[in-house]
Amino acid sequence: MLSVNPGRAVRVGLVGLGNVGSGALSILSGNAGQIEAKLGFPLRVHSVCSRSVAGKELPAGVDAVRRTADWRDVVNDPEVDIVCELIGGTGVAREVIDAAIGAGKSVVTANKELMALHGADIWEKAIAAGINLAMEASVAGGIPIHTVLREGISGDRIQALFGILNGTSNYILTAIERHGSAFETVLAEAQRLGYAEADPSADIDGLDARSKLALLSALAFGERIAPSDIYTEGIRRLTPLDFQYAHQLGYTIRLLCAARQTPEGLLLSVRPALIPRDTILAGVQGAYNAIWVRGEYGADTFYYGRGAGPHPTGVAVVSDLMRVAREIRNGSPERVSPFAHARLGAYRPIPITLQRRAWYLRFRVHDRPGIIAALAGILAGKKVSLDAVLQLPSDTKEDLPFVITLETTCEADLRDAVEQMAALDFLKEPPLALPMETSL
Amino acid sequence: MLSVNPGRAVRVGLVGLGNVGSGALSILSGNAGQIEAKLGFPLRVHSVCSRSVAGKELPAGVDAVRRTADWRDVVNDPEVDIVCELIGGTGVAREVIDAAIGAGKSVVTANKELMALHGADIWEKAIAAGINLAMEASVAGGIPIHTVLREGISGDRIQALFGILNGTSNYILTAIERHGSAFETVLAEAQRLGYAEADPSADIDGLDARSKLALLSALAFGERIAPSDIYTEGIRRLTPLDFQYAHQLGYTIRLLCAARQTPEGLLLSVRPALIPRDTILAGVQGAYNAIWVRGEYGADTFYYGRGAGPHPTGVAVVSDLMRVAREIRNGSPERVSPFAHARLGAYRPIPITLQRRAWYLRFRVHDRPGIIAALAGILAGKKVSLDAVLQLPSDTKEDLPFVITLETTCEADLRDAVEQMAALDFLKEPPLALPMETSL
Repeated sequence: MLSVNPGRAVRVGLVGLGNVGSGALSILSGNAGQIEAKLGFPLRVHSVCSRSVAGKELPAGVDAVRRTADWRDVVNDPEVDIVCELIGGTGVAREVIDAAIGAGKSVVTANKELMALHGADIWEKAIAAGINLAMEASVAGGIPIHTVLREGISGDRIQALFGILNGTSNYILTAIERHGSAFETVLAEAQRLGYAEADPSADIDGLDARSKLALLSALAFGERIAPSDIYTEGIRRLTPLDFQYAHQLGYTIRLLCAARQTPEGLLLSVRPALIPRDTILAGVQGAYNAIWVRGEYGADTFYYGRGAGPHPTGVAVVSDLMRVAREIRNGSPERVSPFAHARLGAYRPIPITLQRRAWYLRFRVHDRPGIIAALAGILAGKKVSLDAVLQLPSDTKEDLPFVITLETTCEADLRDAVEQMAALDFLKEPPLALPMETSL
Repeated sequence: MLSVNPGRAVRVGLVGLGNVGSGALSILSGNAGQIEAKLGFPLRVHSVCSRSVAGKELPAGVDAVRRTADWRDVVNDPEVDIVCELIGGTGVAREVIDAAIGAGKSVVTANKELMALHGADIWEKAIAAGINLAMEASVAGGIPIHTVLREGISGDRIQALFGILNGTSNYILTAIERHGSAFETVLAEAQRLGYAEADPSADIDGLDARSKLALLSALAFGERIAPSDIYTEGIRRLTPLDFQYAHQLGYTIRLLCAARQTPEGLLLSVRPALIPRDTILAGVQGAYNAIWVRGEYGADTFYYGRGAGPHPTGVAVVSDLMRVAREIRNGSPERVSPFAHARLGAYRPIPITLQRRAWYLRFRVHDRPGIIAALAGILAGKKVSLDAVLQLPSDTKEDLPFVITLETTCEADLRDAVEQMAALDFLKEPPLALPMETSL
């Protein structure tokens, strides 16, 4: 029974031996027996490519593979069935994938940035060439969200998708929440532990999460969505006090990726937001990722796991290799791009300023009489209704924090009001405005 | 671009028009445009079968289908490509599936009970006949857990799987927890609202959850697992007090389906258990289902959604139909049974009494001196270490509740001790023993 499809193995060429490449390689080696039992035929690593491949120690069982420092050796090798691109970035990686498709090889990639920017075009080429393409590892490494969207819930019509897609910022936010430490302190600690990069901007300014949301939204809503279409705001301004105020209101704060269909179009944003503490999304702690999908028929489903790491992302790569290998052996069902724009698309991205939400406004002021009256006057001028004013005990009148929450208000009006407030001389800094996700 | 695989539609014959059948039908009709856009070809309902089909009102768009009260008309119709079995049960449903396979039709089923009992055999027949089989809707309707295990994380080696797989008991338990009402009161309310059946036994005694765990464990661990292999205990004995004590300890209580690989073998159980309140599993409220998978490489992933309901389960059925339709049109990758026993199996189910856990023991006694001494004496005799004694304020000495927690103890020793305790005359009822899932 071991091999119901007897014959030669399907052969993989791995390009890139960084974290993900090494993780995938150790799974392909350590789990080879179970992989063969599940497939009915062996999946073999035929060659590996990395600039420093000569000195690399490879796991037992893959030590007989061909090693090269030139990716062309992998792509042009007639023995290789699947090229696995694990370099990352949009330069050489693109060349590798284009060349592999040109050579009639199937491709597995973990490249979020490239697929977010050029995935639709790459997919069209792959279909035209009759090869298979898979990219499960490109978003939320440990969570099989591509498989879920492509197959598991493909019969549904997606209405909204929410995600916590950057592990570093979630680690930082939940550490601020738990320990009450300042953002800078937590960031330094995260850098020391290797959770954050020396230049943390891609993570804490929301750019990494933005690429992921662009890719997932393109798959979920059938739109050609560029990362630059997405309103993006990072987490640098959040303080322990914001979590205290949020808790008082029954909320917590997360860097929330959100994509929603509305009658006017698709609303896309990556920004810190208040989310109710009793939702399952609020339970996502530390470096974990999560995705919440709301379907017209299937209602809410939720997916959670590690967002990164050699082994969780390696599982995604290896599972993709298994699927593509099965398709190579038994016939290929992928004849339609998962980037379904121009086929599903009834929605276009619309400006975030059109959205209507409840708001959390946090102020830091030099205390003096008349502050609330001045702020309330500006809000009233924009016909914005104030919901509550909240002030926790504080030591100083020189830097007094407090919070105003607003009833549902169009973001354009909110921004006008915040801009007007910035001129008030009692403010220590411009107000921090966060949407409140009351409907999650 | 609409049809990259031009040609005739793939045609479906639906057998069974109950809740799930009607739900699937309304999605196939209401979402037909998007389904065709995703597939590249139309998926059509060709015939429907139900005993009362003559009088049924069908959704717009499927009113021209062939109606019959005899399932043989569907199975023998040369125009039907996929037979969709939505009758349930192990009698006629089995005949329908066997006949469909015999006639060379592919099969989609939502039948948990049948697939838990005979899935492995049915799958072998399907492979021998060269047809496709899919059963996403059979467990946890709204959660695409089959797709996840079969494809999304197929490269991993599963170490443990935990689930909340019965929506009715979870609804009841979370209502007891939230409102402090008695089990009987909440059950009656659930019956009134249609969440629980007139005969609630299958749900509240764990039998429904047991079938689901048998099926998921067979897929995850590669074992031929019969539902009767699984130690099963229902939720009838739980009281609001148990939740109060559990909260004091930092836990909540859920009907937990658990499958764990141990060096000795596979431990399987469906039973109420204490789970830490700060885990994401504890956040599963009401009629929702959830599955937590622990992989050797991918670590923890978690999947959550509606467990039942015409539309969530309908999404699973329709997504399966789409996958099978794609395979029929483009080649079939399913040549290996997902019931991988005899291929993966290194583990056999072992008796639950071999497991070692921490325990929660709840007593109801006539208060008098010497009670703790008597209980502690029995525990000491079994070399069981007492961890804590907990007693919340109480009105009466006639029916006094309290809790003892035990350090990690073999279940066989725990049961011996509980049996000895049952003879003590101060007990109002035998002690309630629940495992504490400290490692979740």
